[in-house]
Formats: sequence, structure tokens, C-alpha cells
Amino acid sequence: METRFCYRKNHFSRTADGLKVTPKEHEYIFKTQLKPKKTGLMLVGIGGNNGSTSVGAIFANKKHMTWRTKEGIQTANYFGSVTQSSTIHLGWDGQQQIHVPFNEIIPILSPNDLIIDGWDINNANLYQAMIRAKVFEPELQEKLRPYMEPIVPMPSIYYPDFIAANQGDRANNTIPGTDKKEHLEHIRRDIRNFKAKHDLECVIVLWTANTERYTDVVDGLNMTAEQILASVDASADEISPSNIFAIAAILEGAHYINGSPQNTLVPGIIDLAHKHNVFVGGDDFKSGQTKIKSALVDFMVNSGLKPESIVSYNHLGNNDGKNLSEARQFRSKEISKSSVVDDMVEANKILYPTGQKPDHCIVIKYVPFVGDSKRAMDEYICSIFMGGRQTFVIHNTCEDSLLATPLIYDLAILTELATRIRYADANDGEFRPFHEVLSILSLLLKAPVVPPGTPVSNAFMRQFASLTKLITTLAGIAADTDMQIEFFTKLPKAN
Amino acid sequence: METRFCYRKNHFSRTADGLKVTPKEHEYIFKTQLKPKKTGLMLVGIGGNNGSTSVGAIFANKKHMTWRTKEGIQTANYFGSVTQSSTIHLGWDGQQQIHVPFNEIIPILSPNDLIIDGWDINNANLYQAMIRAKVFEPELQEKLRPYMEPIVPMPSIYYPDFIAANQGDRANNTIPGTDKKEHLEHIRRDIRNFKAKHDLECVIVLWTANTERYTDVVDGLNMTAEQILASVDASADEISPSNIFAIAAILEGAHYINGSPQNTLVPGIIDLAHKHNVFVGGDDFKSGQTKIKSALVDFMVNSGLKPESIVSYNHLGNNDGKNLSEARQFRSKEISKSSVVDDMVEANKILYPTGQKPDHCIVIKYVPFVGDSKRAMDEYICSIFMGGRQTFVIHNTCEDSLLATPLIYDLAILTELATRIRYADANDGEFRPFHEVLSILSLLLKAPVVPPGTPVSNAFMRQFASLTKLITTLAGIAADTDMQIEFFTKLPKAN
Amino acid sequence: METRFCYRKNHFSRTADGLKVTPKEHEYIFKTQLKPKKTGLMLVGIGGNNGSTSVGAIFANKKHMTWRTKEGIQTANYFGSVTQSSTIHLGWDGQQQIHVPFNEIIPILSPNDLIIDGWDINNANLYQAMIRAKVFEPELQEKLRPYMEPIVPMPSIYYPDFIAANQGDRANNTIPGTDKKEHLEHIRRDIRNFKAKHDLECVIVLWTANTERYTDVVDGLNMTAEQILASVDASADEISPSNIFAIAAILEGAHYINGSPQNTLVPGIIDLAHKHNVFVGGDDFKSGQTKIKSALVDFMVNSGLKPESIVSYNHLGNNDGKNLSEARQFRSKEISKSSVVDDMVEANKILYPTGQKPDHCIVIKYVPFVGDSKRAMDEYICSIFMGGRQTFVIHNTCEDSLLATPLIYDLAILTELATRIRYADANDGEFRPFHEVLSILSLLLKAPVVPPGTPVSNAFMRQFASLTKLITTLAGIAADTDMQIEFFTKLPKAN
Amino acid sequence: METRFCYRKNHFSRTADGLKVTPKEHEYIFKTQLKPKKTGLMLVGIGGNNGSTSVGAIFANKKHMTWRTKEGIQTANYFGSVTQSSTIHLGWDGQQQIHVPFNEIIPILSPNDLIIDGWDINNANLYQAMIRAKVFEPELQEKLRPYMEPIVPMPSIYYPDFIAANQGDRANNTIPGTDKKEHLEHIRRDIRNFKAKHDLECVIVLWTANTERYTDVVDGLNMTAEQILASVDASADEISPSNIFAIAAILEGAHYINGSPQNTLVPGIIDLAHKHNVFVGGDDFKSGQTKIKSALVDFMVNSGLKPESIVSYNHLGNNDGKNLSEARQFRSKEISKSSVVDDMVEANKILYPTGQKPDHCIVIKYVPFVGDSKRAMDEYICSIFMGGRQTFVIHNTCEDSLLATPLIYDLAILTELATRIRYADANDGEFRPFHEVLSILSLLLKAPVVPPGTPVSNAFMRQFASLTKLITTLAGIAADTDMQIEFFTKLPKAN
Repeated sequence: METRFCYRKNHFSRTADGLKVTPKEHEYIFKTQLKPKKTGLMLVGIGGNNGSTSVGAIFANKKHMTWRTKEGIQTANYFGSVTQSSTIHLGWDGQQQIHVPFNEIIPILSPNDLIIDGWDINNANLYQAMIRAKVFEPELQEKLRPYMEPIVPMPSIYYPDFIAANQGDRANNTIPGTDKKEHLEHIRRDIRNFKAKHDLECVIVLWTANTERYTDVVDGLNMTAEQILASVDASADEISPSNIFAIAAILEGAHYINGSPQNTLVPGIIDLAHKHNVFVGGDDFKSGQTKIKSALVDFMVNSGLKPESIVSYNHLGNNDGKNLSEARQFRSKEISKSSVVDDMVEANKILYPTGQKPDHCIVIKYVPFVGDSKRAMDEYICSIFMGGRQTFVIHNTCEDSLLATPLIYDLAILTELATRIRYADANDGEFRPFHEVLSILSLLLKAPVVPPGTPVSNAFMRQFASLTKLITTLAGIAADTDMQIEFFTKLPKAN
Repeated sequence: METRFCYRKNHFSRTADGLKVTPKEHEYIFKTQLKPKKTGLMLVGIGGNNGSTSVGAIFANKKHMTWRTKEGIQTANYFGSVTQSSTIHLGWDGQQQIHVPFNEIIPILSPNDLIIDGWDINNANLYQAMIRAKVFEPELQEKLRPYMEPIVPMPSIYYPDFIAANQGDRANNTIPGTDKKEHLEHIRRDIRNFKAKHDLECVIVLWTANTERYTDVVDGLNMTAEQILASVDASADEISPSNIFAIAAILEGAHYINGSPQNTLVPGIIDLAHKHNVFVGGDDFKSGQTKIKSALVDFMVNSGLKPESIVSYNHLGNNDGKNLSEARQFRSKEISKSSVVDDMVEANKILYPTGQKPDHCIVIKYVPFVGDSKRAMDEYICSIFMGGRQTFVIHNTCEDSLLATPLIYDLAILTELATRIRYADANDGEFRPFHEVLSILSLLLKAPVVPPGTPVSNAFMRQFASLTKLITTLAGIAADTDMQIEFFTKLPKAN
Repeated sequence: METRFCYRKNHFSRTADGLKVTPKEHEYIFKTQLKPKKTGLMLVGIGGNNGSTSVGAIFANKKHMTWRTKEGIQTANYFGSVTQSSTIHLGWDGQQQIHVPFNEIIPILSPNDLIIDGWDINNANLYQAMIRAKVFEPELQEKLRPYMEPIVPMPSIYYPDFIAANQGDRANNTIPGTDKKEHLEHIRRDIRNFKAKHDLECVIVLWTANTERYTDVVDGLNMTAEQILASVDASADEISPSNIFAIAAILEGAHYINGSPQNTLVPGIIDLAHKHNVFVGGDDFKSGQTKIKSALVDFMVNSGLKPESIVSYNHLGNNDGKNLSEARQFRSKEISKSSVVDDMVEANKILYPTGQKPDHCIVIKYVPFVGDSKRAMDEYICSIFMGGRQTFVIHNTCEDSLLATPLIYDLAILTELATRIRYADANDGEFRPFHEVLSILSLLLKAPVVPPGTPVSNAFMRQFASLTKLITTLAGIAADTDMQIEFFTKLPKAN
Repeated sequence: METRFCYRKNHFSRTADGLKVTPKEHEYIFKTQLKPKKTGLMLVGIGGNNGSTSVGAIFANKKHMTWRTKEGIQTANYFGSVTQSSTIHLGWDGQQQIHVPFNEIIPILSPNDLIIDGWDINNANLYQAMIRAKVFEPELQEKLRPYMEPIVPMPSIYYPDFIAANQGDRANNTIPGTDKKEHLEHIRRDIRNFKAKHDLECVIVLWTANTERYTDVVDGLNMTAEQILASVDASADEISPSNIFAIAAILEGAHYINGSPQNTLVPGIIDLAHKHNVFVGGDDFKSGQTKIKSALVDFMVNSGLKPESIVSYNHLGNNDGKNLSEARQFRSKEISKSSVVDDMVEANKILYPTGQKPDHCIVIKYVPFVGDSKRAMDEYICSIFMGGRQTFVIHNTCEDSLLATPLIYDLAILTELATRIRYADANDGEFRPFHEVLSILSLLLKAPVVPPGTPVSNAFMRQFASLTKLITTLAGIAADTDMQIEFFTKLPKAN
């Protein structure tokens, strides 16, 4: 399918009189292969809460499972997945607004189509993992048992320096030895076998395992593809497990997505992805407190209200929380959660004259009793008109894995879609794939990695608009639905 | 200034195979008179909290007033006004995102330019009114005293049947008699005098007085311009004070905006506005709980989360709260607050199969102690993935008048702008004004009145996008900034 | 068992110099029959949420049931019952504080000992009722099924004028006819049969059915025992179903407790109880929002902080909420919830000079989605030192029936205990039972009915101290544990 | 004034059959000197928020100051002071409950009687300090200026190792040198001069300065009076500024109270206090989050509800918050806040079988924007009946200094009272003062220091009962008001 799109874009120059804005139009051609590829998803940390929930929910949906809760009969669903449960506004038919399901605009995979396998440092089978996760109701756990019990995670890589010491007990399913080159080969072999076994056209490796500490980013270590491969060969200390997985994926032609906050995607890995024509994306699922923050702060700033203080407390009791209770791992998380308002603050120099920023504070605590039922408690204080203050206090019960898992599907589904798209500038007609850093995933990520030199956009509704506009453009039906000129004018409204 | 805009719009037809979508382009031409008009704003209820705050804040801003608070020196500002404190994203200059203040895109009025006068059923001068309002700090009150004390509201119309009985004590500044025709003439004279005295090009009458009960809407009474004029002549019981003000405004060529929830804008009044080529807009300032709800629910539904229960409690202690403590007045408010999620619910048939709606409950209580410092307490419960639930609990301290007053300015400023715009379909080239029901004000209103047969859109970020897209279109610099294709492609990013 | 207690009490006289306080001592003798009686508990509304939960939980505890939840294995318990789960502080043994379970001080019944039956206007058996209630987890429901399914409520009395119209559908199990005298006889027969069938020594009838509207309290109707019996004979309109149940109980020598807010215990019924030597108690279980309010406000006032505004919102989705969605039934509830801070306010004339009271507002809304999981949202604002304000905002997820049911057991258990107590003034040695209005139940009731002329005390911790002091007094081991002189003095601390 | 009190106390022995409880009575004689002493209060940290607020509020109260706020005219008061604003229940006079102001039972000082001076490491005068504190309204600040400006703190002791590095800038008013012995002499001289200048009978030194890190408690350093004096002579590193102040106070016969959480009151200092017959008390004002926690958890546990998880977040922006943003200082605070529920948990072995404790987590963050307006956000989750859960979420806006300052007065007033009390066991008649560790201050302190071997009681209402019982006992009018036998019996109620 080939579509043309006339992209309106302003060009800027600064003159003595100030900013000069010149509107221009660029014509793009998009070519989208319509048939989704047979796709495999390999989860690092498949035995964790997200991992077992991802796998279980697909079985539950495929088998149309239902289960009793005290509130009544519950049915499997894909709520919280943008690709499966959102709709896109296409326009007005003269009678009503037309909204079409996201997954009916252009052909994309369903989570049900994904073939899943993965690694974990713990050897519990997925039935045991699911019980440990405390996410599904008991009756559902039992209905899933025959499907989940046979699945045992492949051994994973465990370098204790990168995750919290309290994870040591869990690490009973690890690839032996200390030679990182061998570990890389092991993982590459796992990917090759998986691909061959299922005859896959597309493989995506996605990290949903423990948050690692940050690694150093220094020349000689990991600034280029060559450097990082050499560092693996040398079993360099700063090569993390997630580095190994990302490199293995790329070398096998698989795409790599980082669902945790650590800085896996160092320049050397992005360079490697570029050379191997695969996508990388990250960091950190945007599912709960940060997601709503990225919508709320945008709302406030656009309303002309000035957030002065944003205090975000969290506590959770699952293994993610346990791992984050050590300082270095928390630090990774703190970084990914902190930058989320920066672009919105910088967008408004009336409220925030250069150099001003709101107080912004992030806390995560491990509270075993709450389990996977993560609690986010936020206080936003805005300066409003004439020195007044508006204070928002929010208590948000975010079921951690139930919010994150749909994002895993969406990340995989959008990545697969991206592999089918080529675009060209109409002037030269040369078709290319998207940039290897796949920024269309930003909607789903707390601290989006973007192509070097391009801006990060965190505002949820803007990200959503960007993604849906792309989807309708690919389908050749992009419309200026946000403008709705027809409703405030007196032109005939007939179709 | 004349600009052309190619508006992309989908046309729809239903076939045996389902919905057929055909993209089309319409070319519009916009002509905007660049020089803002000298504009007068007449407030009904100028002695109320919003009224005295509106007037006082303009003096404070014009005179660059500062005042001490325990936190330090405070400066007058226009935070919370979209036209004065928001920025619009124009694009990327290769280095950074370009955001320009809303009021620098095309020439619009500043609140400082507005000439204000108004009516009130109470005769307190605006210094007394300001003290009664409990909105400004004492030091600011004293600095404003010389400007506020001389302003005394013009006598207003008081029909006890329309507002709460507890307002009776306040009604000491009313136009005598019971002949509604005479009242209409009295108000028309006030408008004429005001216009003449200040030599105004544009007058806007804005209701920020007590919420009235709903009036009946029945044929013979108020369905056409003729009917409603006849009903005024007959002093019909169902002609409310706000009807009189709206009719007086329209007959004097002034625009009329309803900042309260009652149904002033009955078909007869819209018809009258149409005949007199003036704008009407309403209903009910969207400033606090409902405003954030219109952003949050849109965020949730677009995230694929399903709001199942939305419970919105409010309490306040100012005179608005006192008036709303009677059932019929509360009912008007309840209606305007209730419809706000309807369009978002209808937009998603995956989450809400036909006929489903969330439980939605609105409560407003009068609690004198909190004064103007309105408290909104909300609980949102969403069904999420696999039967889980996400619960958001929000306590929102909304300073009532400090949030509403900037909207009063914005409503007036955007209305004045609208009077300067003509548009044409490029095919016929005939220039027309906007529809007399001014739906570009929707961003600022809880229950937007829209032209008959057109859809209501309540989602804040969509409304904001719609408005800012119009503004850039008028300026000839509309861009597809929401799409940001340039950042996920590999095209040269140079300017 | 007989114990003596020297009760320290101040006597007061007012003189020209002010209040004169004279300490006096009264010696009391308490005689407690140690063996608990075989006791039956008859619930009005046994098919409601509280009813089915009460019955089910006793089976679950007796059978030591366990069930799986996603968090793990759950065991039946009696948490939330003061008699079963609280401890009483007896003193210090030189090493540690000695706290003994409440039910080990003097012999009292266990909930497991109660024999339960009851009436309901709906004919669902208790298994169906339990499913409808949405209180227990599905696995527990199934384990209880064999015990619950055979239990079918006896037909009850339904006078539509007293409860909400929306209860009409539910009323399919009612005693026919309109002759209230016959209804009384029918219920008396039910009580007699129950007593005989189980060979009971003590029967308690407890209303846990729908909240009724208030009845008139007027001379000629219900001011004396004779009047109210005559009114029943005459099938007077103002004789409510709960009146009939109370009268039937009293005439059969059974004690009557009102767990709902309506004014069942009119003077005529108290008079009748007096004449028949049975206890009556009420009104309205104190289980959630009001319970914590009665602790918090006492805490605040004793801290010298002045609550100025107390706003209490509630919503729930069970049948209680549905019934309360009509105005007259809500009004009963509003009254019982409103008076709870009055005694604390009156206790402090420094904070509240005569005539001052805080703003206090109560709202209950019916929100079906939340079911039995009642939500209470409160805002307390206190004036503090030097004009400052402390604001407490509370969101309280109170599982409605899980909080109320333990109170049902406690009410029955304490009532049975009261039947075994006689006391005498040591001066005359004449032993008497407690007053027929059983005020020792106050801890468990929102609006305690007390003997005429005696004060109501709502402060939770004071009520708790009062009850536990009585229990230790009966056991002959009352101590001044609250004073703890031994710890700030230097006397030898040895035992 | 001399009063006798028969104290009921249980004695315990453990037998084969279990615990044996034997009630006993001890007769005590209390002798209270009725005339309060002329008392001086010396604040360490007088230039901090609490310090300047304490001094300013006394002037405001003495001069009956009023000031305008936007809500109206505000009057100086002592709300939040138990001694000045609480009442004590004395009994029932047949008509109504008799509550008498705390300060009318026995003669005690008023804050107005206190003569205040103090030290600070910063040389701002108290007018400047008051502005910096952001506690009082501007108009009040100006009214206080003539009284506050002349007061300049005496130079204080600054050992950078004990407080946060960020306090370095503030330290411009310090006693020179590094010889701790000389510092001790300097402070002793300050105390002597103050006492002589004002001809005082009683001096109290109270630490309301920065939280220090914990010091080591080791033999040879500070386990006895001799050791700690020798350590001062040797200028030992582990001798903190607060140690010096405490020792100086004791050696000058002044009482010492620690309002911060650090462990100033090491065994050597308590020993020294014993030898010099002065009182010491601490630690850490109980004013906000912890105070309400100590009431709430007691309420929950006594209700038979089981707190399983208590998560307490705080943020504040004053200098206390800034100092606590370093780890060692926060650690002191964390300890004092953590132990507060321990006694309540240990009191109930039904809910908490041996070894069980709730998850309990404390966080304090420095958020400059909120200033002195401290925010506490708590989540309590209780296991309730049959595996249910009750969740309380609290947002508590606690004005930090406005809550703490009244406690400073109360601590001083109660300490002065304690100096006037002697008690004797009636058996030997030998009169003694209270223990040198003044545990009657516990009500006001987060982590009460108690005499060795005695239990800590944190439950607010129990502490309140203990204190008020003592006060009425001293006045000879102690009554069993908590029991209220007269209301559930049928004895004559006449006076």
C-alpha cells in the first residue's frame, strides 16, 4: 500500500525583528506492506510478574476464558492496550463522529498472534511464576495451569553487580561461566533456535527483567559498535546483562526493546543496530504514575497554570520493588521518571522564564504487603492567577503488571508494523526504513530514547496524536480532525 | 490578513462491506482584520466573586502591583488565561522546539485593554465586594481600594423564582417594577450608554451572576426570535433575568456569553442572535473539577482504560455555593457537569459497547468555612486489563474565582477576535462570519452550546488543539506539529 | 461472681466563686452469672449483605475454612470484632505490659455459639444472597454453599411507605395482609418457635434490614407502651415494620437491637421494654466513616485543634446504598451521622464558645459499580495556632459488610452478657439489672440511644475505655492503667 | 496542696494455669506547691521557624494583636496547646457533662508568663528570622516588628559533623574555638546571666534547632556522668552541640528538653541530671503525621482491625527539611518516627502473633516550594474481617511550626509544674520528686525517653488520659469519668 502525504512544516529564522516563520510543505510517500509478519517475542525476565502475566493473558484471551470474581463473571480482555482497545477519530459523517478501532485502520498483529518465549534467572515454570506474581485470580490461575506449567524459562545471564543483592536468592537458572563472549553466543543461539523452531519472519527481544544500575558510557568501552563488541570479547566489567541481550538480538537481526530504565542503549548499541538494520527502542514502560503525569502536566501548562512542585511517591511489593530498594537500581528509575516534565516546562517561557523549573521529587519504596498493587501518591501544586495556588493530591492504585503488560504487546505490535514501512521524500523517491531508534514507541515509554539530535516529547496526548496521525497517514486517510473547522463555520455540512 | 488552508477531511459512506472512508481536501480562505477593536465587557454579577476579581486583577496588572504574602513578594499576573499564559508549538528549528506565546501569533486584545462595567443585584461597591469575596490578600485589597471603591454596580434584574431564596437578602439594587419589557429597555439603555460613553467598537455582555433554574423550552414561548420577544412583551413567567440580558445584548448588537449553567440560550435567543449577526456562547465556565475531568477521561479512554465509575464531590463556601444549595439551581449545575464525559464514552465502542456508560455522580455542597477555596474530591475507577481495576482518588483545591476569572478574559478576547474573521470556501469565494453560536469558546465552557446538528467535544486537549490550529491557520502558519514525521525518519533535518 | 468497686465521682455545685467540685466515692457491688446462656440471634434482613455475611462467616470460622486469593491462602477470622480481636490492658508486670484478650477476662459467648435465623422480604436462600452480596471470594462461596443453600429467610413485613420505592422488586417474601396486629402475632410466633426449637435461654432480635424513614413521635401514637400497642391494634399508618419487630421481640422476652438509623425506639417501645425487663439498643452500626470520625474529632479537640469544617462524602453500590438513594431514607441516615461530633464540640468552650459549631455535611450516593466496597471521602479543616489551618483529606475504602458484621456479633455478645449482670449500691445492697436502654453498646453504634436524661458519648476511645473498664470491674481486676503513676515516679517497680 | 490517691494496680504471677492477676491498691500522697515559679525558657535554635514563631506568638497574644487575612480579622490564640486549649472531663452534674479548661484545674503558667531567650548559629534578628520562616501573615509580621527586631540570638555552637553540610551558610553566629570545655563554660555563663538578669526561679533549656546525627553510645564515652564530663574536657569528637547544651543546663540546675530526634539524652546525661536533681525530657515534638498516627493505629488495633502496611511520606521546604535532606540527619528522624506503633502492635497478640509487625515505611523529602507548610501523605492498609482490607489514604497539610510551637509551651509549662510536685507512698510518707526522666511529657514527644526499664506508651488518647488523670489527682478531684457507670445503671442520678 502506498500513500502520499503533504506534510506542513514551519521553517524558522531569527532576524533582528525576532523569529521569522515560513510555512513549507514536504511531500512524503509511505509504502506499507499490508501483511503482518509471523512474529516471535522473546522476553528477558519471562518468569517475572510482567512476563507471566503477558503469557497467561494471551492464553486466556485465545481460549476466551472466563472466571468468577466476587463481583461476577470476568472475561479476558486487552484493556490498556492502545492497539487493541483504543479508537481513532476519523471525522464526522454528518450525523455522528466516526471513531474506528486502532487495529482496523491498517493490518497489525493481535497479541494472540505473538509467539512468546524467554529467559529468566529463576527456574520457576510459568504456573509457579504466576502464583508468585499474585496478579491473576485463583480460578484463572487454575484454568491457565495446563498451558503455563509446561513453560520453563531458558537460563539467563546473571551479573550480581548490576542488580540488587536481594535478587541473589532468585538466581538459580543462570548461564554458567564468566566469559561474556560465550554468554553472547549462548543467547544468540537461543534466538536462532527460537526463530527456526517457529519459522519466524520477525523476532523482537524485550527486556522486562530487573532494573539494572546504569553503566558508564565512555569512549573505548561502548561508544561505537566496534568498541562494544570488543568490550564483550574482553568480558569488560561494564558490560551488563542487558547489553549482552541487546547485542545478541541485533546480531541475529532481531529488534530490541528496553522496558526497564537502565541505559542499555548506549551509543555503541545504537550504532550496531544501525549497521544491522534493526530497531531498538526504550526506555521503561510508561504505565502508571508517570503516564498520568505526562498527561496532567501538559494539561496544566496548556491551561496557563504553573506547576511549581511535583512530588511523586510510589510503593509496591513485588520483585520489581524489591530490586529497586537498592540505591543504584533506584537511581536508574529516578532518572527515567524525572525527565518526564522537562519538555513541557521548556515549552512555556511565560510560566517558566529561562532557568526556572518546578521542584520535582520521586520516591519509590518497597512495601511487601501491597504486592503487585502499586500505589502512587502525588501532590501537584500550581501557581495560578494572581498568586493563588491549586493543589492536586492523587492516590492512584495502579496494578503494576496489569498496566505494564498491554504495553509489552503494543511495543511488539508497533515494532513489527514499523518493519513493514518504507517512506520517501517525494522529491527523490528513495525509500528508506524508519530510523533505527524507533521513536514511534514513545507513547509507551517513560524516557523515550530518540534519534540523536531530535527532541523528546513526553506529553501523552501529543504522543497519542502523533501515533494515530501516522497510522491514518499510512492508510491514506489522514485528516485534520483536530481542527473541526466545519463545526464553527456555516458551510454546508453534508457529506 | 488573508490566508488559505487546505483542510483534509474524510467523507464516509456505509457499504455492505462496512464503512468506506474517502479522504478529501477542502480549501478555505480566512480573512482576519488585524487590528483589535476597542472592546467593552459588561458583567452581569459584577459584584460577585468573579466580577470583583476580574476588575481588580486588571487594575493590579495594569499598575504592575505587587504585594507581600508570607511566602514573599507576589506580582500581578494572568496565569490561567490561555490567551495570556499559554504557548503554541510551531515546530522544530533543527535545534529546539519552537513555542510562541498564544498572544503573539495574531493580534488579540489583552485583558488590560478591556473596559469593564456591569450590573449586580447588590449595591456594594467593588471594594466592599472584593472584601466580601475573600479572594485577594489584604494588602492587595488596600492597594486596589482607590480604583475599586468608586465602582458601583448598575441595578440589575431580580426575579426571585429563578435563583435561590437565600439570595433575597442580597437583592438591594434591583430595577423596580415587574414589567419585563421595561426591564429589557432599561438594560438596552445601559448597554447603549456604556457603548457611547467609551466609544466602543465591540461590546460583550457576560453572565457571571447566580446560577438560575432551568426555564421551560416550549413552542409558543421561546422557540423563535418572535416568540421570545413576544413573551418578554407579555412578561411571561418563564422569561428569566438572563433571557432579558441576552436579548438586550443581541438587540444592541452586543455579543452574549453565558458563564453559568442555566439554559439561557434557548432556540429563540439563538435565532435572534442569528438575525442580528452577533455571537452567543455558553454554558458555564470550565475551570476546576470538570476541566481536569475532561482531560483525564480522554486520557484514560485513549489509553484503553475504561472508566466505570466517576464520583465527583465539590464543596465551596462562597455565594455561588450558597445559591446552589437549593435544588433547582443545583440541578442546572448538575446537568452542565454531567454531560462532560459523554462524547469520550461514545467514541470508544470497544470499551463501551452501545448503551454502556460509566456510573457518574455529581455533588455540590455549601460549606461556608471554605469560602472561595472550592474543594473538589473525585474518585475514578477504571476497569483495566484482565479484570483489574485502577482507582484514582483526587483532592483538588481549586480557588474558585482565581480559576474562573482568567476564563472570563479569554472568552471576551476570543469573541472579539471572532468578530474580525471572515472565511470562504475557495470554491465560491463568498466570505462569511463564523456561526452565531461561537463554538470556538468550547475550551472554556463546561457544557458547550454548539450549532444545531454539530457534535460537542469536551476533551480538553482536543479542544486546545482545535483552537491553536485555528489560530495558526489564521496566521498562515498551520503545521502538522502533532505528527513530527521528521523525527522518526532519517531525512535531513536541516531547516 | 461478685465484685466490689469503689467508684470515684465528682459532685458539683455552682457558687458565687464558680464551680465547686467535691470528690465522692460510691461503692458498687456487681454480680455476674459466669455461664453464658444458650443464645439465639434473629436477624431482620438476614438475606441482605450483613445478614448473609454474618451467617456465612460463622460457618467459615466453625469449619476452619480456608480459601485461595491471589495474595495467598486466607483463613476465616473475627477481625473487627472488639470482643474477639481486641485486648485489654491490665497493667505492667515489671517486665512488660500485660494485655489480655477481651474474651478471656470474663466468660462471654463466641460468635460460633450463636444460633442464627431471620426474616427477609426477599426469598433468596442464603447461598443466592451471598452471591448477590459480592462480599466473599468465589471459592469461599462454594465452600459455604452446602451450609448456606438450605437456609431460606422467613417471610417479613413490608410496608412500602417506609423504605425506598426501588425496594419493591425485592419484596417477594412478605407476610400477607394489612392487619398490623396479625403481623405482630406472626412475628411473635416466629420468635416463640425459634426459641422452642433450639431450646434457647436468650433471644436477641437485631434489625439489619433496610433503613426506614423516620416515624412521627406524638402523644396518642407511640409515647407509652399502651399507646403503641393500641396503635398496632389499630394498624396505624405510622407503625413501621421495625416497630412491629421490636414489639414482638419485647413481648416474647427477647432483646431488640436496631442496627439501622431509623427511630424505631420511640418512647412507647422503651416503656414496653422496661415493663417486660428486656433490653433495647441502637441506633445504626458505627463501622466506617463515622467510627473513625468519632476517634479523630476527639483526638483533634483534645489536641487543642478546632475542627471548623467536616465534610463527609460516601458512596456505595449495595442494596443499602440503593435504598438510601431516596430522600426520606437518606434523611434518617443523615441524622444518625450528624450528631456524632456534638458531644466533643460541647466539651470544649475554649475552642467553641457557646453557640459555635463546625460546618458539618454528610452525603451518601448510590454508585452501583463499587458494590459493597463503600468509599468514604472526608475533609476535615481545623483552625490551629495563630490562624493557621490543618487540613486532613481522607479516602477510606470501607468494605461495608465486612466492617458491620463483626459489630453484629459484638452487639449480641454484649447484650447476652448484660443479661447476666446485676449490680447494687453497697449502701442498700439491692441488686438490679442494667437500664433497659443498653448504653454499653454505644461503642458499636453511630447514634447511641441512651437512658432518658443521660448524656451521649460518641468518642470512640472513651467508649472503648468505658467498656473495658466495666469488663475488668466485673472480673474484679479494674485498675488505673490509664494513669501509670508507677512509671514517672521513682517507687520500687517490683511486683 | 496535698492530696491522697488510692491507685488500683494489678499484680501478676504466672502459674501452671496461666496468668494470675491480683488486684492491689497503693495509696499515694501528692504535694503540689500551688504558686508557679518565675520561669525562663532558653531555646537552642531561637532563630529557626519554631523559635521565631514561639517568641512572636507570645507577643501577639500578650498584646492581643489582630490582623487581617483575606478571610477576615484574625486574633492571636494558643490553639494546639493542650495546656491552654484543651478541657478535662470532670463528670456529670445531673444536667450536663462538666469539662473544665486544663489550665483551671491547678495553677500552671501561661505562655504569656514565659521569659524567652536563646541561641542560634545564624545572627538574623527575630524580625528577619520571622520573615525567613514564612509562618506569619505580613501584617502580623509588621505589628510584631518593634518587639522582634531588637532580639538577636546569642552565638551558638556549630560542629559541622553533626548537621547537614547545607547548613554551613547559615552558621555565622557561632562561638569561636574548638575547645568543647570552653564551649560548655560559655553556655553555662549564658544560662547564669539569663537567670540572674531576670531573677528566675526556674530555667528550662529546650532544643528546637537542627536535627543532629546520632552519636555513638559507648562505654568510656558517655555512659556515666563522669564519662561524659571527661569527654567534654577532652573535646571528644562524639560530643555533639546538643550534648554541650544539655550538660550546661544540668550543671546550672536548668531542665533540658530535646525537641529534635537525635539521641542527646545518652545515659551519661541522664545520670548527670539525676545527680543534679533536674529534669530531662525528649525526643522530638509529636505534632503532625506521627501524632495522628499514634491516635489512629491505637484506634484501629482497639477496633480489632490489623494494620498491615503503614506508609508515611512527608515533604517540607523549611530549613528543617533542608537539614533532613542529608542521610544521617534523616536517619535520626526515621528512628524517632518508626517506633511509634510498636507498643500498639505488641499489645495485641491476636492480630499480631509474636514476631509479626506491619510493614512501616517513613520518607521525608525536601521540597522548597511548600516552605513551612509540611505535607504528610499516608496510606494505612488493614486486614479486616474474613480477609477483607480497609485502606485509609490521608493527605495532611500540617503547618510545621504552627503545630510544633504550642508543644514548646506545653513542654515548658508541664516541666515547671513537675518541679512543684512531690509524692510519697502513704506507707513510708517520704516525699520525692518525679523521676529525672520526665515521662509525663510523652504526649508531646514522638519517641518519648522514659526511665530505664519502663515501657513507652505512644497512643495519643492513652497519653492524654494519663496526663489529665494526673492533673485531677494533684487537684484532689480524680474521678472514674471514663467508666460512667451511672449512665447504664438505674441508680438515682441526682447530685
